[in-house]
Amino acid sequence: MTRPSGRSPDQLRELRITRQYTIHAEGSVLVEFGNTKVLCTASVEEKVPGFMKGKGEGWVTAEYGMLPRATHTRGDREAARGKQSGRTQEIQRLIGRSLRAVTNLKALGERQITLDCDVLQADGGTRCASITGACVALHDAVNSLVAAGKLKVSPLQDFVAAVSVGIVDGQPVLDLDYDEDSSCDTDMNVVITGSGGIVEIQGTAEGTPFTRAELDALVDLASKGIAEIVAAQKSALAA
Amino acid sequence: MTRPSGRSPDQLRELRITRQYTIHAEGSVLVEFGNTKVLCTASVEEKVPGFMKGKGEGWVTAEYGMLPRATHTRGDREAARGKQSGRTQEIQRLIGRSLRAVTNLKALGERQITLDCDVLQADGGTRCASITGACVALHDAVNSLVAAGKLKVSPLQDFVAAVSVGIVDGQPVLDLDYDEDSSCDTDMNVVITGSGGIVEIQGTAEGTPFTRAELDALVDLASKGIAEIVAAQKSALAA
Amino acid sequence: MTRPSGRSPDQLRELRITRQYTIHAEGSVLVEFGNTKVLCTASVEEKVPGFMKGKGEGWVTAEYGMLPRATHTRGDREAARGKQSGRTQEIQRLIGRSLRAVTNLKALGERQITLDCDVLQADGGTRCASITGACVALHDAVNSLVAAGKLKVSPLQDFVAAVSVGIVDGQPVLDLDYDEDSSCDTDMNVVITGSGGIVEIQGTAEGTPFTRAELDALVDLASKGIAEIVAAQKSALAA
Amino acid sequence: MTRPSGRSPDQLRELRITRQYTIHAEGSVLVEFGNTKVLCTASVEEKVPGFMKGKGEGWVTAEYGMLPRATHTRGDREAARGKQSGRTQEIQRLIGRSLRAVTNLKALGERQITLDCDVLQADGGTRCASITGACVALHDAVNSLVAAGKLKVSPLQDFVAAVSVGIVDGQPVLDLDYDEDSSCDTDMNVVITGSGGIVEIQGTAEGTPFTRAELDALVDLASKGIAEIVAAQKSALAA
Amino acid sequence: MTRPSGRSPDQLRELRITRQYTIHAEGSVLVEFGNTKVLCTASVEEKVPGFMKGKGEGWVTAEYGMLPRATHTRGDREAARGKQSGRTQEIQRLIGRSLRAVTNLKALGERQITLDCDVLQADGGTRCASITGACVALHDAVNSLVAAGKLKVSPLQDFVAAVSVGIVDGQPVLDLDYDEDSSCDTDMNVVITGSGGIVEIQGTAEGTPFTRAELDALVDLASKGIAEIVAAQKSALAA
Amino acid sequence: MTRPSGRSPDQLRELRITRQYTIHAEGSVLVEFGNTKVLCTASVEEKVPGFMKGKGEGWVTAEYGMLPRATHTRGDREAARGKQSGRTQEIQRLIGRSLRAVTNLKALGERQITLDCDVLQADGGTRCASITGACVALHDAVNSLVAAGKLKVSPLQDFVAAVSVGIVDGQPVLDLDYDEDSSCDTDMNVVITGSGGIVEIQGTAEGTPFTRAELDALVDLASKGIAEIVAAQKSALAA
Repeated sequence: MTRPSGRSPDQLRELRITRQYTIHAEGSVLVEFGNTKVLCTASVEEKVPGFMKGKGEGWVTAEYGMLPRATHTRGDREAARGKQSGRTQEIQRLIGRSLRAVTNLKALGERQITLDCDVLQADGGTRCASITGACVALHDAVNSLVAAGKLKVSPLQDFVAAVSVGIVDGQPVLDLDYDEDSSCDTDMNVVITGSGGIVEIQGTAEGTPFTRAELDALVDLASKGIAEIVAAQKSALAA
Repeated sequence: MTRPSGRSPDQLRELRITRQYTIHAEGSVLVEFGNTKVLCTASVEEKVPGFMKGKGEGWVTAEYGMLPRATHTRGDREAARGKQSGRTQEIQRLIGRSLRAVTNLKALGERQITLDCDVLQADGGTRCASITGACVALHDAVNSLVAAGKLKVSPLQDFVAAVSVGIVDGQPVLDLDYDEDSSCDTDMNVVITGSGGIVEIQGTAEGTPFTRAELDALVDLASKGIAEIVAAQKSALAA
Repeated sequence: MTRPSGRSPDQLRELRITRQYTIHAEGSVLVEFGNTKVLCTASVEEKVPGFMKGKGEGWVTAEYGMLPRATHTRGDREAARGKQSGRTQEIQRLIGRSLRAVTNLKALGERQITLDCDVLQADGGTRCASITGACVALHDAVNSLVAAGKLKVSPLQDFVAAVSVGIVDGQPVLDLDYDEDSSCDTDMNVVITGSGGIVEIQGTAEGTPFTRAELDALVDLASKGIAEIVAAQKSALAA
Repeated sequence: MTRPSGRSPDQLRELRITRQYTIHAEGSVLVEFGNTKVLCTASVEEKVPGFMKGKGEGWVTAEYGMLPRATHTRGDREAARGKQSGRTQEIQRLIGRSLRAVTNLKALGERQITLDCDVLQADGGTRCASITGACVALHDAVNSLVAAGKLKVSPLQDFVAAVSVGIVDGQPVLDLDYDEDSSCDTDMNVVITGSGGIVEIQGTAEGTPFTRAELDALVDLASKGIAEIVAAQKSALAA
Repeated sequence: MTRPSGRSPDQLRELRITRQYTIHAEGSVLVEFGNTKVLCTASVEEKVPGFMKGKGEGWVTAEYGMLPRATHTRGDREAARGKQSGRTQEIQRLIGRSLRAVTNLKALGERQITLDCDVLQADGGTRCASITGACVALHDAVNSLVAAGKLKVSPLQDFVAAVSVGIVDGQPVLDLDYDEDSSCDTDMNVVITGSGGIVEIQGTAEGTPFTRAELDALVDLASKGIAEIVAAQKSALAA
Repeated sequence: MTRPSGRSPDQLRELRITRQYTIHAEGSVLVEFGNTKVLCTASVEEKVPGFMKGKGEGWVTAEYGMLPRATHTRGDREAARGKQSGRTQEIQRLIGRSLRAVTNLKALGERQITLDCDVLQADGGTRCASITGACVALHDAVNSLVAAGKLKVSPLQDFVAAVSVGIVDGQPVLDLDYDEDSSCDTDMNVVITGSGGIVEIQGTAEGTPFTRAELDALVDLASKGIAEIVAAQKSALAA
């Protein structure tokens, strides 16, 4: 089997992580998985949402959006339609949960960090790219709090990244682009920490259900990919 | 370890499936997993939504709701608030995908079946109960089309059911009730067909990430539980 | 004239009132007028809405909903459409007013009781069934406050119930089912207390206006019916 | 008892009906019941709403609004809040039903007439004033269709008007102004045709329920008042 | 060139300003530019919006609406559609800014004045009429505060009025009515104070762009017209 | 006077126009006025909106958005809030009108081009940058239609660009950045074509009204600036 992109089954797309992409946010990262480009900003606010008040803890949350022409054909602008789609809400809940899994909310103190993940260009895997870029932006925002003396140590306990895997024509492949994503039988998004703990696993059979053996192969592939992605996150932050 | 309910780790709650619970719908099932009670109705309409028009195929979709006082404390009525929560949309998309995985949409013809899953009483696992009950209601609705001569054979290729599994105090357990659900570290919903194919797997670490070994144990437990649930579905339909 | 159901003109449908139908609410009643089935729950909250704050009084309010397939053909889910219809709002305002008419709000203290009336199955007369069932659920909720020592005496001054009456083919009839409701000329909903006081009267001529004599006959019929319904409420509470 | 306005119990406020109040609408009436002023316009459109298509009949409907400062203190603008209140919807449904009760929809042909009733100044009884003024605007609109040769005869079978009655300090009174309306025990709106047929009766006990004898007295009072109002409508149309 | 109305190019329509048009508002003005009729009310509230709290200043804001049948053909009711159009929001922002330009917000104290401008009948120039009438209503409201001893001196520093100008068939004309407005190439709304200072200028080329010379001619024309309008405002307030 | 940026009063910020910034859209331009960065995409659809159907003409429209953290402090996401602000709607209407002013809609044929202007980073002048960038994206989209043989000649009759001017500390200055914009007395946005025709002029006095002489100076300044901007647009398209 040859992938449309010429990649081998276990090969990631070219991954680029650009920090300080915009100037106002406490963390601002452009993450690119091949042609998928997502701008992830981290905004610190010295207050927490209503349901967290008085607990002495912080909160990390996310919002997700896609520019109308990030895709092949123009999609509706959610602000104009007057509501976010179910898909958008599902994705932003996933991003938030993934980042909270590596954050010590008590150590963050009574402040909120909002990760805005806006897709400038889409070619599959936007939610995984969002988690990956948002993690780096979150590190930058938290480090700025430490540098400013507002925090003694970083409340971030680990890195976290995500990748999609799927079965295309019977073959498990890593990091699906749009062409593969639209034609695959099974699509799985996996979120794993730097130390290898699984945070989220979301697999869906689009047509034929998948077997236990396929599940195992997909999780193996995702683990391998995420190890490479976390290395890239660390290297970007060290730059 | 003792579970609050006294169940063994791999024991389902008492499962009851009552067909023809209401009189108007083509399929109407009250499904009970212990104290969780969901009314699942299947409604047949001789038309398809806009995006399916002219394809010569049918569509199966789902809507989910919870009565305001299905829970310990009263929740907002979504109709009064003017929008469905992200959680509601996530659940109804999951139910729809699960049922379409066992339906031959071409064989259904240009008609839509809507599964309404309304939670009358909640005690954990409402989305899994919904999928389980909706599958039976869908069978009833499709059988009524066959009986009426509108379909020659049933477009349903299999059964499908769901169950939640989780790690509570380090122990993998099957079919979490509300008490366990609120205290567990890892929560996973698994959707599997009658022939054992995996349709959906959605696992989330609420606190500590989970290991590969724990993932394996949870999937084993879910597979065992779903085999029992599918047996109950078949027995209910045979009654 | 024969009624489609074979009932005599002044005969109610079979009335069933089941208390403690669900487990979480302070009052939970399934009320059935023939095939019309409404689940009425009463939820007590130790706070009042903004416009009642600081008055030293309580509040009783209601919300009404209908499951999408409670009816012959599936109706839109109001939560999905994003707003409640004018009909829904009219009904829930009527239920709230009717219950407040028998409640001493001062004696209730600064707390709110919300009556949720959700129609599981509809066959005409759902608003009247809602008032009737909600009254019993309200009694249960208030009695639980008395039992818990939060109230010394019940702030409920009376019972209240409702019934529809109408003119079908020139004949005044009691407690219309769906078939009669859709074909009748004049439709009237009457809300009366246990001691016979009129709380609400809402009569509408669908086609030909009605005469003063017909108005009198309809109110007579409603009074007779409500006396029987209140007896059933009292008997259910005594059980 | 003396009424705040000095009127006798069965005396209407000064009633003024001004036709052709604005220039664009097919019917345009300013109706004044004392200080209550409502602008009622009738707009003819050569199409019917979706649910009436293909029936060979017309439709008459109404919309109701209140300018934010029509009242003592400024109310929210419903367009700014983004939704119409339950009260607004209840009123516009009532106006529509009342006018359809005197219209032969078949004779109207496949066209819609919309009555917009906008309260410029409120002092109680705005829904009754709306029905009264809208009836005259509807006559003007229909007469313009007859004059234009689009209709051979008027599809209006009668006049229709409305008035409020209530029990204030134990005394039944006619045509309540705002002061009486806010303090009365029982409030009733009655809609009656020119030939004396009852179209709508909506009575509510705000505090103590009302007796059968009080109901009778109120309907008598309303009948008397409406006879005078219909005379004023006819006289305005003859001018 | 002859204008459809027979006016000379620099001639305003007949301008009428009627104060105390309704009874409840602190300022209530019906302003008429020919057939354009707008009811402008000023409502005083002893509180400011959230973003102005604690600044020791007041706020002046505006809302704008058009009755559905103010126009040749019936328009949607914004309250029924559930949102205000972009045009409505643009206009009410313009009215608010124009009035704040002549108000000393500090001298107003911590209170808000809301100007509601509701178009009863439209024939072009409704936003200019709104500004013109709202200025008079604002003067009345502020004078009532002074009369009541709540303010020592009026915080209004000047008058402000608005007029539309445009190029019709190559000719600059003043105060366009609907016919001219729909056919003109360039349309400009100008807001000028009593002392001649420009507050707002909004010019739009509908077809061919306009030249600098045309811009100059239009501003000249507007200045002349506004001087006459301000004289009328002063004369109305002196009456 | 020294400007905060060190620019001379009539000096533009550094202007960069990058074409083909993203890959899917028919035109995709990143426009930068100093630190203000707007992504402008042009999307061609072979259909027109309802109100343009059957006229044999095309339509050009625009939508505008700002990423939540494009600004110094995070703003609400309009999609999450469920509606676009009045400011957003005002801006997108302005962009659309400006582009239609240089487009021959008849020559475009029955197709729609939507310009999405999304602000990635804001430092004042985002609406002017949007118009400037959108014009280039529109040229690219139209040229692609010509290249594909769908249009014989370009329906674009000219270039169009916009710039803000204002009076800061009594001095007219060109192309305000955020610091100047927040402190200026008068703010004006001017839209001018390549051949010098004025398309839009929108001036607002934030505090003191401005004089006729100031208006003249501002228009002079804007004309000079736009000539430079149009030169940059042409040079970008020639590249």
